[in-house]
Amino acid sequence: MKLIILRNNLKEGLSAVEKAVSENNNLPILKNVLLKTDNNQIRISTTNLDLAISKSILGKIIEEGGITVPFSTLYSIVNNSDSERISLEQDNNTLILKTDNYEAKIQGLNEEEFPIIPKIENSKNYLEIEPAILKNSILKVLSAAQISEIRPEISGILLDFQLTILKLAATDSFRLAEKTLASNQFGANFNRGFKIIIPLKTTQEILRVFKENQSISIFVDSNQILLKTNDLELISRLIDGVYPDYEQIIPKDIETEIQVEREPLINAVKLVSSFSGKNNDIKLKVKDKKILEIYSASQYLGENHYLVPAKVNGPDFKEVAFNWRYLMDGLKALDSEKIIFGLNGENKPAILKSPEDVSYFYILMPIKNT
Amino acid sequence: MKLIILRNNLKEGLSAVEKAVSENNNLPILKNVLLKTDNNQIRISTTNLDLAISKSILGKIIEEGGITVPFSTLYSIVNNSDSERISLEQDNNTLILKTDNYEAKIQGLNEEEFPIIPKIENSKNYLEIEPAILKNSILKVLSAAQISEIRPEISGILLDFQLTILKLAATDSFRLAEKTLASNQFGANFNRGFKIIIPLKTTQEILRVFKENQSISIFVDSNQILLKTNDLELISRLIDGVYPDYEQIIPKDIETEIQVEREPLINAVKLVSSFSGKNNDIKLKVKDKKILEIYSASQYLGENHYLVPAKVNGPDFKEVAFNWRYLMDGLKALDSEKIIFGLNGENKPAILKSPEDVSYFYILMPIKNT
Repeated sequence: MKLIILRNNLKEGLSAVEKAVSENNNLPILKNVLLKTDNNQIRISTTNLDLAISKSILGKIIEEGGITVPFSTLYSIVNNSDSERISLEQDNNTLILKTDNYEAKIQGLNEEEFPIIPKIENSKNYLEIEPAILKNSILKVLSAAQISEIRPEISGILLDFQLTILKLAATDSFRLAEKTLASNQFGANFNRGFKIIIPLKTTQEILRVFKENQSISIFVDSNQILLKTNDLELISRLIDGVYPDYEQIIPKDIETEIQVEREPLINAVKLVSSFSGKNNDIKLKVKDKKILEIYSASQYLGENHYLVPAKVNGPDFKEVAFNWRYLMDGLKALDSEKIIFGLNGENKPAILKSPEDVSYFYILMPIKNT
Repeated sequence: MKLIILRNNLKEGLSAVEKAVSENNNLPILKNVLLKTDNNQIRISTTNLDLAISKSILGKIIEEGGITVPFSTLYSIVNNSDSERISLEQDNNTLILKTDNYEAKIQGLNEEEFPIIPKIENSKNYLEIEPAILKNSILKVLSAAQISEIRPEISGILLDFQLTILKLAATDSFRLAEKTLASNQFGANFNRGFKIIIPLKTTQEILRVFKENQSISIFVDSNQILLKTNDLELISRLIDGVYPDYEQIIPKDIETEIQVEREPLINAVKLVSSFSGKNNDIKLKVKDKKILEIYSASQYLGENHYLVPAKVNGPDFKEVAFNWRYLMDGLKALDSEKIIFGLNGENKPAILKSPEDVSYFYILMPIKNT
């Protein structure tokens, strides 16, 4: 292999695959990056066996070939180099990297020792979507998920393919977020009721690596997902398990429906949290059918309260406690000027949504009165 | 006490004193900030008994008084508030903070329980200096110092007042930096040979809190230093101990004097460090009286080298090893386009300096050949 690559292209390629490099010492080859010529392109790949990323970059291919070298060494050199061009030449298992005044011989490993990155061939389960729509939908549900060792099935985002809609959902059992995409927002061919769970780390990589300019093709089989554009492929294991049947906790009715401006409410929650305790509790009450009072008190620090003007439908409301961080996550996932905050008693789930957009909601369990 | 303060003023005041808040749980009052009216100003003070900072801010004083409240609670509220004005009112040991829709009652402690911040009265040891000159001088030596529990006397910066000059020095025994100020750069009244050691943390606070617009008055007695502008006072304990007599390690002659451009050398050190080992070693040699070669090798990763054009005075040079991080610190402390790198054999201290500026040097011990 013999290549001449613009340093910025090589840097961009390495940056795209960075997070699929393994930190596991048992299989040193997983710390390596595979460089390989592929038709007229140079393919850069990493895998930690759960997640693999491949990025094609342009460069002058003088001689074809392939080699793997330690990712961190190559990335450090490319990041610190200020040369416009970098020349790479393979000498058996050594990669010789040259710029103007600089030369490195990087000890690599034979490309055949690199794990084969699995392919999804001829999958009938197919989805085509714009990156902005996919990423925005992931962002709307992401904050409700958390890695759980006890319950691996909720350590990811659910994709629920129904006949004409696609639902994304996430929950950590304290809150639940669901975003629904209508069929005009994606092209797809899926069996109705097909459900997959994408690991959290994979969703974070999807947000990081896909740029806005190319639509993403998604292929799924029973245990992996492939996301693909012209120059980028991300393939990940799925989480094996049955996602909780969350329909039952979605409130059917809302007892007290409060409409408030989102920004002042975010501000109020931030401020009032200054006095909240270890369990991050703040309390809410509805007064005089027009004021949402948010307050917290601490035995040692004192107390505080914030009054937010509100339009209230339904009875006033005595007191309900929430984890302010969870409430804030929901408020930030919404993007409308006004929001609906639906309360259902001090022990029943509350709901946050936009008055205009029925495609998204965020459900929040109160902190139980003890 | 009853005050109305612009939120930005209060925020700036709290930010200035933030780092002197104690994290020690044994004396809870040290986690508090003291608010106190003082003539027509509002004085904000914190102390951890080693370091105390006081900042005066403007505000409307409706009623005089003083109170202490937990710093982190007040700072969190002021940071998160979006009100233009904040009203503060004392009710015994409670501070009532109000903005438009918000009210907090912060439990405080009586101002009399707050430690008295020591004063330096009528000190005969006096210095007047522009903040830019002081801060630039500290920055030039700071990176050579490190906190050492075994040798507290080197865990700070030496200020050595001589008759017409002031020397600042720092060392961690692997390197040494010294900056000399001429008498036209400061006004002073000090006994010749007067030396003090300022703790590292204090020097970092000096860099952080003093703005460029007011000259700083410095007063010193045998165990503390006070830095003072119109609205800011920083008082710190000094380090008790005898600073090492470093004159003896300053090389008198230079065997091989190399003149190189600073930026390419920084770049070379960064790149070559990609292959350096756990002790951060990189090696240098001088070739053909015109090339400085920088190189490193690793048993596992490979090897690399960078050639930097140089003007060489003296014999070529076979091999000397340095800790690249220490070399980089020295190169960054210099600010000239070209630098002089003086080498004295593989086990003797090297020196870095600017060809134009004799007021600063950085001495660096080689890594001994083993």
